Amino acid sequence: MTISSTPKTTPSKSLPPSDAKARVKQFMRQLQDEICQVLEHIDGIGTFQEDAWERPEGGGGRSRVIQDGAVFEQGGVNFSEVWGSHLPPSILAQRPEAEGHGFYATGTSMVLHPRNPYVPTVHLNYRYFEAGPVWWFGGGSDLTPYYANAEDAAHFHATLKQGCNAHHREYYQVFKHWCDEYFYLKHRQETRGVGGLFFDYQDGQGQLYQGPYSDTPSAIYSNQIGTQAPRTWEEVFAFVCTCGKTFEKAYVPIVERRQSMEYGDPQRQFQLYRRGRYVEFNLVYDRGTIFGLQTNGRTESILMSLPPLVRWEYGYEPEPNTPEAELYETFLKPQDWASWTSPVT
Amino acid sequence: MTISSTPKTTPSKSLPPSDAKARVKQFMRQLQDEICQVLEHIDGIGTFQEDAWERPEGGGGRSRVIQDGAVFEQGGVNFSEVWGSHLPPSILAQRPEAEGHGFYATGTSMVLHPRNPYVPTVHLNYRYFEAGPVWWFGGGSDLTPYYANAEDAAHFHATLKQGCNAHHREYYQVFKHWCDEYFYLKHRQETRGVGGLFFDYQDGQGQLYQGPYSDTPSAIYSNQIGTQAPRTWEEVFAFVCTCGKTFEKAYVPIVERRQSMEYGDPQRQFQLYRRGRYVEFNLVYDRGTIFGLQTNGRTESILMSLPPLVRWEYGYEPEPNTPEAELYETFLKPQDWASWTSPVT
Repeated sequence: MTISSTPKTTPSKSLPPSDAKARVKQFMRQLQDEICQVLEHIDGIGTFQEDAWERPEGGGGRSRVIQDGAVFEQGGVNFSEVWGSHLPPSILAQRPEAEGHGFYATGTSMVLHPRNPYVPTVHLNYRYFEAGPVWWFGGGSDLTPYYANAEDAAHFHATLKQGCNAHHREYYQVFKHWCDEYFYLKHRQETRGVGGLFFDYQDGQGQLYQGPYSDTPSAIYSNQIGTQAPRTWEEVFAFVCTCGKTFEKAYVPIVERRQSMEYGDPQRQFQLYRRGRYVEFNLVYDRGTIFGLQTNGRTESILMSLPPLVRWEYGYEPEPNTPEAELYETFLKPQDWASWTSPVT
Repeated sequence: MTISSTPKTTPSKSLPPSDAKARVKQFMRQLQDEICQVLEHIDGIGTFQEDAWERPEGGGGRSRVIQDGAVFEQGGVNFSEVWGSHLPPSILAQRPEAEGHGFYATGTSMVLHPRNPYVPTVHLNYRYFEAGPVWWFGGGSDLTPYYANAEDAAHFHATLKQGCNAHHREYYQVFKHWCDEYFYLKHRQETRGVGGLFFDYQDGQGQLYQGPYSDTPSAIYSNQIGTQAPRTWEEVFAFVCTCGKTFEKAYVPIVERRQSMEYGDPQRQFQLYRRGRYVEFNLVYDRGTIFGLQTNGRTESILMSLPPLVRWEYGYEPEPNTPEAELYETFLKPQDWASWTSPVT
């Protein structure tokens, strides 16, 4: 059987250029470099220590950690580039075309745990896969405040939205909701924080939303997202590049606004308690973490995302009408932050 | 079709007595009471606070927590009794005979996090299930030291072994190894501690070892355990009763020996760091925890097992020839502790 023309129901997939891997890898390394530079600059004291590592099965990476800084109690920024003979079953289930093919993956990920409870924790991850006939980008960035401000949440979202809008009028709406869906702690009935962007399996095909994963607790989308025009590899890569570059504008102004706010032991204790949720999410739900731990990933690099100090307290509930209660009531639920406007005072 | 005689290849299962549920429930409640009494006695300051709770789908429990005691920084002892219309798929996969039947389950579980790093953390859990034509007991107890002593590990194991030997000559050997297999952190290549006993699906049938579960990282047994003579419900219940009562003898002497040992900040920091492993095990591997969180269990009771304060530190490795290094080299690997004898001095 020969296929003489592209069937109209399955838009032909844009092929990656021959230097795709090299270009994405270069971007991911640069992103790590740029982020570390920016963070060292705003921290002023802490510097990143690098561990280069090799993966016996193919590839390696460089893990960078900042500890005991002025702003960042701990932060990790990892670059990795790995390859192998086959993707794990969980990914093959989503991309059966990759069955029987080797794979290549590269990405940069980051989690920052600031010391001051008024400075939110932030996460970023962008990644690229090639496997036989398929390729895709995934990633996103999300904000987890302890003492939250609508102003900060709105700034973070508006900045990400601006980056999205430069590429596709549907990106922000779809990836913002996907983020709310993904970073959800079902057992707490809370979002991890105020969200941001999350996307996966972006291969230029018409369907932007490709969730939920098999075990995602609450699917807020059920593929109602309309089919979009196909996008080329170049278009998707350009979007991911914009996302990466948007991080500084989205996060740094928040740090600058909050890092000198005074706090006492009650705020510190609440921050340590809320960090427990970060641990719960990463170890119970986060596919990347669980997959990495169960498949011989570099444990220290994977668990660099865990906070340096954490509390659990049985039966804790915030006092009514406190900033702690406001976090739960307002900021741990999906909200349309990008449309928020400062009240007239 | 009528079955006129018991087929020899499938020994007939001993039926539970008509008051089985009531008797096991009573035992589990008493076990909770006795443990709490013993712990309050050795703590001297802390007392248990109880939360009684109901489960909307059927049943309920009483969670008891001790906080900021003299010995116990935090400890939780939970009793629960629940029922419902169907068991979850993960259990039905192990016991397909229960398909289409309602179930009843009752149990008591406990985790203690002492303040002094020389006093080990300990876990205990015993549970009973009935579902249609099947019933079984599961449970065990294991010890997780920070600054470990062969003497303590040997005492804990020898006491459990004595309890086992009163019931079956194979119990200790099989359930000790099953414990080493179950409480294993694959991503760290460490056991959780010095182990103890673990067993599941004990229904009186010939096969004692019924692991590994589908996703157990390292199966050290592969059903090589020989078929034993079937045991009655009474025999298995009597064994579980002995196990429960053995706890005090196994653990309390260790607390008494260690609770007054002096320690400083380095020991405290190492304890907090090692507590991170407890969190990693419970959230990444422990089936009970994950199942509970994902199926609408009472979150605060489930996560009562997590330590009150925890550290993570990127790239930590103990200095050679220190007590911290000895923990890794000697105590986080399966060892025949029951056969250990004190060296002649």
